[in-house]
Amino acid sequence: MPKIVDHARRRDEIAFVACRVVAKYGFEQATIVRIAREAGYTTGMVAHYFDTKQEIVIAALRLILRRIEHRLTRPPDAGGEPDLLALLTEALPIDAARFTECAFWTAFWGQVAADKRLKSINSRMHRAYMQLFERCLARGWPQWSRWSPETQQRVLRSVVTFLNGLTASTVASPGDWPAARQIEQLRLHLSMVETWADHAAPDGAEKRVRARR
Amino acid sequence: MPKIVDHARRRDEIAFVACRVVAKYGFEQATIVRIAREAGYTTGMVAHYFDTKQEIVIAALRLILRRIEHRLTRPPDAGGEPDLLALLTEALPIDAARFTECAFWTAFWGQVAADKRLKSINSRMHRAYMQLFERCLARGWPQWSRWSPETQQRVLRSVVTFLNGLTASTVASPGDWPAARQIEQLRLHLSMVETWADHAAPDGAEKRVRARR
Repeated sequence: MPKIVDHARRRDEIAFVACRVVAKYGFEQATIVRIAREAGYTTGMVAHYFDTKQEIVIAALRLILRRIEHRLTRPPDAGGEPDLLALLTEALPIDAARFTECAFWTAFWGQVAADKRLKSINSRMHRAYMQLFERCLARGWPQWSRWSPETQQRVLRSVVTFLNGLTASTVASPGDWPAARQIEQLRLHLSMVETWADHAAPDGAEKRVRARR
Repeated sequence: MPKIVDHARRRDEIAFVACRVVAKYGFEQATIVRIAREAGYTTGMVAHYFDTKQEIVIAALRLILRRIEHRLTRPPDAGGEPDLLALLTEALPIDAARFTECAFWTAFWGQVAADKRLKSINSRMHRAYMQLFERCLARGWPQWSRWSPETQQRVLRSVVTFLNGLTASTVASPGDWPAARQIEQLRLHLSMVETWADHAAPDGAEKRVRARR
């Protein structure tokens, strides 16, 4: 029987190895040769799936997005309400696999300012993440739909900025951010944001301003 | 008359060029040759001040810390209370010079996980920044000294994580974060943290637990 290779699966496999290699050696040192070696393939085999390192990086970014999307949109246990803290914790570097994803992202951010092609890739990925987190907040906060669009956008920016900050801080100083501390600090952030949006957000004032325009 | 060169000043000058070069070309592409060229010096001249690229990077990190420290600890205008939002805004990428500093930091974070020597440099710098921001919050919030040490640490971690998140988010997606939006989102964060620390922090419960130990 001829050997059947699942091409999509092998692309994912190489992309995930690339993610590990970037996390371990940094963005520039993650060459196709090194990625191939770590994956146990020849460079020629990898070239069969990807023409350039940039293609591998894009595949790795998409793979991580898919993995995070899968974890953030899973149905709640036993049909209950989705637990927002548990959902968002999935995006934090709380274990080895998630640390690798976050270290890859941090390495990528560190390279974006210096690379025009990465900038446009990043802005597409960024929009996808914002939509994903918005859906996640809308699921996790029953009162989300009662907040004004302005309040929703501020809440979304606040939560995503905080998650990005925890990602970069933990990747740079892992000793300062054991998993329990990351989760506790995220819990505090979500509770502060929720209190503000429920009680202090200037929705009334904004609505009046909009009505007058 | 012999030409008198201020060595400390020239080291700073080269370190600042290094910061610009890292922000522009990325961490790995910022070679001594490139830094020397951008500074208008020969490689030999730069080697007179720094033995390795790592030394230049450390000098650049120290220079940025000194600059931010200078801006964050300046006396308030006209003898009034220091304005915390205005102070902390100094650490954000709100203009070209500060964007360069933040892009340098983001590039550095992106490299830390892959480089053991950078890890120990980072942990020293990280402690210095935490102390600087702690002094800044203690100056800017009159009620700081009334908060328990646990509340102070949570507030400090929340503010620094948020600043790091704004730094990384803006460097990666500058179009999404014009200066006014960064400042508005930081203002919101400070106000949420303050409300929580003044009213909702479980200090009483914590103090009772500590007393029983």
